[in-house]
Amino acid sequence: MTAGFRRLAPLATAAFVTAAGAATLAGAQPTNTPDGIIYHAEFQRLWDQNGDDWMAEDAEIQARLAELEAKHGKKPNIIHILWDDMRYGAVGHRMLTDISGYDAPNLEQMARDGASFTRMYTEPSCTPTRVAAATGRLAVRSGMIFPIFPIHRMGLPGSEVTIAEVVDDTYHTGFFEKAHFGDQEEGYVHNQGWDEAIFSLYNQFAGQMFTSDAENTGFSVAYSPDGYDKKYFMDDTFRPLEWMWTVEGFEGGETREFSTPSTFADYQDANARMWERTKDFVIRHADSDKPFMLQWWPNLYELADQDAMRPFTTQHGSATGESVKRMDAKIGELFTLLDELGIADNTIVIAMADNGPMEPVWPETGQNGFFRGGKNDVTEGGIRVPAFIRWPGVVEPGSVIGDIVHVSDLFNTFARISGRYDQIPRDRVIDGIDQTALFMMGDTHGRRDYVFTYKGTTLGSVVKQQFKRHFASSGGGLAGAEFFDLYKDPREEHPLMAEFLWSWAQFDAIVERHNAQIAEFPHTPVARGEPYTGVVRLADQ
Amino acid sequence: MTAGFRRLAPLATAAFVTAAGAATLAGAQPTNTPDGIIYHAEFQRLWDQNGDDWMAEDAEIQARLAELEAKHGKKPNIIHILWDDMRYGAVGHRMLTDISGYDAPNLEQMARDGASFTRMYTEPSCTPTRVAAATGRLAVRSGMIFPIFPIHRMGLPGSEVTIAEVVDDTYHTGFFEKAHFGDQEEGYVHNQGWDEAIFSLYNQFAGQMFTSDAENTGFSVAYSPDGYDKKYFMDDTFRPLEWMWTVEGFEGGETREFSTPSTFADYQDANARMWERTKDFVIRHADSDKPFMLQWWPNLYELADQDAMRPFTTQHGSATGESVKRMDAKIGELFTLLDELGIADNTIVIAMADNGPMEPVWPETGQNGFFRGGKNDVTEGGIRVPAFIRWPGVVEPGSVIGDIVHVSDLFNTFARISGRYDQIPRDRVIDGIDQTALFMMGDTHGRRDYVFTYKGTTLGSVVKQQFKRHFASSGGGLAGAEFFDLYKDPREEHPLMAEFLWSWAQFDAIVERHNAQIAEFPHTPVARGEPYTGVVRLADQ
Repeated sequence: MTAGFRRLAPLATAAFVTAAGAATLAGAQPTNTPDGIIYHAEFQRLWDQNGDDWMAEDAEIQARLAELEAKHGKKPNIIHILWDDMRYGAVGHRMLTDISGYDAPNLEQMARDGASFTRMYTEPSCTPTRVAAATGRLAVRSGMIFPIFPIHRMGLPGSEVTIAEVVDDTYHTGFFEKAHFGDQEEGYVHNQGWDEAIFSLYNQFAGQMFTSDAENTGFSVAYSPDGYDKKYFMDDTFRPLEWMWTVEGFEGGETREFSTPSTFADYQDANARMWERTKDFVIRHADSDKPFMLQWWPNLYELADQDAMRPFTTQHGSATGESVKRMDAKIGELFTLLDELGIADNTIVIAMADNGPMEPVWPETGQNGFFRGGKNDVTEGGIRVPAFIRWPGVVEPGSVIGDIVHVSDLFNTFARISGRYDQIPRDRVIDGIDQTALFMMGDTHGRRDYVFTYKGTTLGSVVKQQFKRHFASSGGGLAGAEFFDLYKDPREEHPLMAEFLWSWAQFDAIVERHNAQIAEFPHTPVARGEPYTGVVRLADQ
Repeated sequence: MTAGFRRLAPLATAAFVTAAGAATLAGAQPTNTPDGIIYHAEFQRLWDQNGDDWMAEDAEIQARLAELEAKHGKKPNIIHILWDDMRYGAVGHRMLTDISGYDAPNLEQMARDGASFTRMYTEPSCTPTRVAAATGRLAVRSGMIFPIFPIHRMGLPGSEVTIAEVVDDTYHTGFFEKAHFGDQEEGYVHNQGWDEAIFSLYNQFAGQMFTSDAENTGFSVAYSPDGYDKKYFMDDTFRPLEWMWTVEGFEGGETREFSTPSTFADYQDANARMWERTKDFVIRHADSDKPFMLQWWPNLYELADQDAMRPFTTQHGSATGESVKRMDAKIGELFTLLDELGIADNTIVIAMADNGPMEPVWPETGQNGFFRGGKNDVTEGGIRVPAFIRWPGVVEPGSVIGDIVHVSDLFNTFARISGRYDQIPRDRVIDGIDQTALFMMGDTHGRRDYVFTYKGTTLGSVVKQQFKRHFASSGGGLAGAEFFDLYKDPREEHPLMAEFLWSWAQFDAIVERHNAQIAEFPHTPVARGEPYTGVVRLADQ
């Protein structure tokens, strides 16, 4: 922690006029933090301005964590709950849910017992958010740039280091339900560091829609091979008939197909069995000397058989409403279980959505509210989600956290809390930021003031403080009017230009530094190859 | 309270096929409630279904009010705070204000100490909302259909019975700041029942914009008679140069001009003096044997001289943000005063906005959020406002009320609480509903499931339960697709038709009954005539 580590003095913007020049400069100084992590270039600028304060805070935090560990006899358990497609405000607070939302009394209780985030950012779709949470890196860096469907023949590269690999044997690690990391063996969850896992290769819609039930109810169209006239057809391989949904595995052990539903009942049965295994994981490790880390990323939706979901019992009057209510009941069950096991006080629970709502399927999904857009959009509606944390005795009950947090920050934060920060890789860019201070000291103790959001491989927008610039839609030049004050215009409906001329070159410099860092630390290609290798199919079990 | 009073049995919709027929039927049965009030036709249908329950509730409420009166030695003081143009969620709760809003710590505290409303409806603009609050009637019934400006030569008809006339001498009644009831002597506030009043005839913009300051800063254009080239002009009377802003009066006493600003400093000075008088009213009557009722309807905005408002100190970064902060500080002062005077426990405070934000002047106003539209719109953005109630020992701290309330309901509710329900006129339609049960028993105890909203004299929309139909924009016939599920679509962006065919005839019947009742009890013409009669001008004082 000597001054010698702080190698990257603030660089003049002029030095970055060309990407090539910038790459050279950045290459000479990959990091400026004493921990040696190659943080995002933008964080490095924040460090130069705030690093001394943050190191002082970290000393306090370390002492506090040590106290907690002494009190509980081990480090805290960590549970990360991550569900699909929900807009900010759809659960947790009546001032919001009375307008539009879902019945979720246990998440409301969680908000009362813990803190709610008002600026939790994700990537704009499932696979990218889940990869960012697992690796602490923007998904574009591992090529996981969109939701992977059957049969994409792609997946998470084995060279990515997940949070399970970071905590390694110091924690029991479990993963249940929706991974969405693709169909490549190197990306299977139990090959990425988790001790045990039952996980879907793709999303939950495939699990519901590639079924005869879904076709019979019109929820899926023309998937089954016999359900259409073939007189002009000459390719029988177009439909992904031989796909696989969910897989089970233990680190270093056999990989077995767990479920590939052919009816809605199969889908529901698989989810029920995964939920039992999730609880079993918690129960088995409650009294262990080692803490546990659980990624419970539930399959939220039960949509394909609308009849099976009726009568609707919530004000939202939709199968999604019923789905959320059922998921919330499980969250309640989990909290009760933690209480019964006597481990609630030493268990951190973070619950959140993975991106905004799927607006194209309104009214089944919720309409967005304060924000414009939904899943796949780089507007706030796509990337700003409901999120809650409960950590009894640490997080102030009923509090609100207004700092910017990005889902990748959970990687660093879990690494810090688990005492494994030194295991974060030092050979690649880490987008995550340690936000332990925010969780332990509360509102205004965040360490991020920016968010980069990609649409596929294209940088779509950059948030800085309460300002935002859209790039994906920009025409360039003075005609482009793509600056927003998010606080006055949370729906990004009033692009400003003249008012934000002062920020033009600054935003450009942010992007130039970002691109220069990529030039120095290029993206990892996504894993590609035959799908499902190494899996024992159900038929062969 | 015999069954004989319940004269209007549910009528078959078919009986109302023609407006004439409906009028005849309604004419035979003007009311079905034992209290003899001619409630809105839609409420009468609710009464037929719920009246027995509500009478039982009312007996409990009456007993509870008697207990409170015995405890405090008098009926509760009532303070109604009503400000301009603010969207739902702009103050009071961080989960909302973190997205976009204003610094208002005292309103946040009020929300923690009392209840927040999620469905408080107003009329879509200032004059109508204020008239509905004062008279318990939709503003269209007294012709007060739009914001009155200098010099409209119109105002509130003397035949309207205000809440001050209802409570009469049983309460000290005071009114301060923005009335906006127009420029007719019969409509002056102290001629409408208030013991004492300082009130503006028009809105607060006139008070700021018809000044040389406003013209010098570009906030007003070409008002001053010399500030333009006149070579083609032949009418010097077009500009309302001889107008009057604010008037002071005591019931039965002299009426005096209080302030007509010619500079922004004049405007601010007038507001400061009115605020002192407001507090003085509370102080003078704190220890009285009689309770007091205070309408403090503050002039929120201080916009005209932006320089005088800088530097901005709030995240919203606007003169409106500063204005709200200043108003909120006064609300804090008021609460402190109630505490110091020892009357906080026996004082009901209701604080709310009078309609949605003025979106056309964004970014100075807030952008709307969950709802579409703003002031003057019949969409939820125009009529659904932030609102809070504090009643220590009665209203549960931190609670949320999700029932529909309309601003006209405050008329009946204040009449009930003041023990003067028998003074509500029985010769006209009363749109207000007694919501004392909602205030005293909390969420789900409301008595309204509908809202009628006018655009001028045209019925614009009807809310029923969580559904809404737009009429103003309807083309009629099957091509019209103007039905909304407000809970799935709070922004009214997805009009539905096929899904709501079941409600088509029912909404038509609601409107037919409404129109039939109007045919029987026609609207009162707005007062018209010379302005400012009876006022001693400042120059003559």
